[in-house]
Amino acid sequence: MSVTFAQGFSAAGVAAGISAKAGKLDLAFVVNNGPLDAAAGVFTSNRFCAAPVQWSRKAVADGHLKAVVLNSGGANACTGQPGFEQSQATAHEAAGLLGVEDGKVAVCSTGLIGELLPLDHVLSGVHSAYAGLDSGEQGGSDAAHAIMTTDTKPKTVALEGNGYRIGGMVKGSGMIAPQLATMLCVITTDAIVTPGAMQAALSAGTSVTFNRIDTDGCMSTNDTVLLLASGASGVEPDPDEFNDLVRQACASLARQIVGDGEGASHDIRISIHGATSEDAALACGRAIAASNLFKCAVSGNDPNWGRILSSLGTVPPSVAPFDPTHVDVDVNGVRICQGGGTGRDRSEVDMTPREVGVDVYLNAGETEATVWTDDLTHEYVHINADYES
Amino acid sequence: MSVTFAQGFSAAGVAAGISAKAGKLDLAFVVNNGPLDAAAGVFTSNRFCAAPVQWSRKAVADGHLKAVVLNSGGANACTGQPGFEQSQATAHEAAGLLGVEDGKVAVCSTGLIGELLPLDHVLSGVHSAYAGLDSGEQGGSDAAHAIMTTDTKPKTVALEGNGYRIGGMVKGSGMIAPQLATMLCVITTDAIVTPGAMQAALSAGTSVTFNRIDTDGCMSTNDTVLLLASGASGVEPDPDEFNDLVRQACASLARQIVGDGEGASHDIRISIHGATSEDAALACGRAIAASNLFKCAVSGNDPNWGRILSSLGTVPPSVAPFDPTHVDVDVNGVRICQGGGTGRDRSEVDMTPREVGVDVYLNAGETEATVWTDDLTHEYVHINADYES
Repeated sequence: MSVTFAQGFSAAGVAAGISAKAGKLDLAFVVNNGPLDAAAGVFTSNRFCAAPVQWSRKAVADGHLKAVVLNSGGANACTGQPGFEQSQATAHEAAGLLGVEDGKVAVCSTGLIGELLPLDHVLSGVHSAYAGLDSGEQGGSDAAHAIMTTDTKPKTVALEGNGYRIGGMVKGSGMIAPQLATMLCVITTDAIVTPGAMQAALSAGTSVTFNRIDTDGCMSTNDTVLLLASGASGVEPDPDEFNDLVRQACASLARQIVGDGEGASHDIRISIHGATSEDAALACGRAIAASNLFKCAVSGNDPNWGRILSSLGTVPPSVAPFDPTHVDVDVNGVRICQGGGTGRDRSEVDMTPREVGVDVYLNAGETEATVWTDDLTHEYVHINADYES
Repeated sequence: MSVTFAQGFSAAGVAAGISAKAGKLDLAFVVNNGPLDAAAGVFTSNRFCAAPVQWSRKAVADGHLKAVVLNSGGANACTGQPGFEQSQATAHEAAGLLGVEDGKVAVCSTGLIGELLPLDHVLSGVHSAYAGLDSGEQGGSDAAHAIMTTDTKPKTVALEGNGYRIGGMVKGSGMIAPQLATMLCVITTDAIVTPGAMQAALSAGTSVTFNRIDTDGCMSTNDTVLLLASGASGVEPDPDEFNDLVRQACASLARQIVGDGEGASHDIRISIHGATSEDAALACGRAIAASNLFKCAVSGNDPNWGRILSSLGTVPPSVAPFDPTHVDVDVNGVRICQGGGTGRDRSEVDMTPREVGVDVYLNAGETEATVWTDDLTHEYVHINADYES
């Protein structure tokens, strides 16, 4: 159902000829039909942030957006002033069709870094997408398809609140690391909410979801998460419920990204228990999630706990206090490491399921946190070494 | 020539039956025949440091070592008190043969984490190695072979100072990251030097060599670099020359590790120019060296500067101040990125040489630093996913 699950939104996805793959849907248009046009956004912290990020960050700063244009087939990153002018021209074209100011339209791009877009194709794509705007399932689905790059499937979410709805779509497969997990994401709601409440919900939601997945440790230049509210349900949600639903929407989309990580054969959940603080737990989880050796071992179905501990051991004591001789590790429920040493035999661990669970018990405190990653496979190298740009 | 290039040292390498590979040389013995027994060491900072590291760190603390026993075929890491007792027993056996205290013998191990060694094989190996000690080329060469694991070739160094010599050997191929690059290393000299001067030379030398290579971002539990001085040349070296030679020995061995990185098809030099400080330059270099996406691109012979910039952009401004629009990047001498945007065409870059040079100009200051890494290949995944332990 994607972004059109919430009332008050229409969307379209068209083949604009931006992608090198002929006929691929590569331009999405999402329009908020109101009555509200409240919006919030979070963006990559990469210093080489792309032109569309620079544009959209400014556009959403006042808490209002009427529409978003998203394209695959080119990131428009590291393209300087000409790139910025392309994002601006794209917003201008969409704004003209909608009869709003340019600053009411956000722009998102994804694809190869360092090349300008074929702007004429983008602009004519905006026109065809505008003509095809649809508030039903098809419009949302086409939009979700149009933002895919190496994604093997569209990623969408649809959640029901108490009298209102949240829908969303995301793309992301490679170049996924906190902060953010590399992606373009649009979440919509028909609840009546203020831009301030939306920004708070989105920042809190992304911090425990998109910021806790890491497929390959590589931060993108284009990450954008936008939350748009139409108010079309007429319902003012309970703030706690709304925050929770936004977090759930982010969590579902983030989980789908991990499930579609480039070349991945396993999704790996890493939960750190018994840490002295959330920062400590996250530092430990991220150290393990970043280990190429561990990720290779998982792709070979080996629950190699030595590679878990050697990664964990790189976290400075000042960041995560724990006693190495008190650390236990379960992989898929089997305690293969006990007290920092050998536990049950690794042959007892069933590594065949797609999802692998790693539970690390620091036995140092009361806090826990979970991060997600993928295994490192031949296919990942193939996708990223032998690709055709 | 390895460790026996310096006068006053004998060495041996034997097949002790520790490695799973029948007949592989897997135990090395290096003996300092004096007259001096001065020594210095640097060790992994991993909190799960292996039993032999715990033993050897204590053994070298007083600045004196008579010998080192090194084995491949098992890391004796995360093996608790029984593992520590194995290292101690190994030192005890060697010390008995040499007629010195146990604390005069360092022990190093490399191989799989989390399993005890076949101690009877280690101890009988110490005996055969002792019987075969040789101060000529063969002894040094056998020792260098005996410490190899996934290394495809032995790595040694031989340097002449003014009247004295420095020799050395190292193993290391995977699990290579600062600090240290994962390895076992023994450097010998026949110069007359004090333990304090040796520790200073070794710490300074490793910091700009072994601590600046990163094949896979994974820190080991067993890294050990030992420097032993026999004084057999009778020459007291010029301190600056000695420091410089130790650094050169480390640099040569570190470069050989990069050249033999697991599955690597390219050695990648990353030099950051125009940084505001050495820390800034190193942070930038390491961010690029850690990028799986960039390393995959290089393995596919693509000088993908977008992946260089997106990694560079993750370094916080507080760590490395620079203006993203003033950054230039040369790959193999071709300026493919100019002012943070597209420069010359990537097709101009010849990516066929084994060594790939990346020069990043931050244009923010006067400092430069170089780090080394390897590309990420199918073969790396194969070695680390489909291995037989």
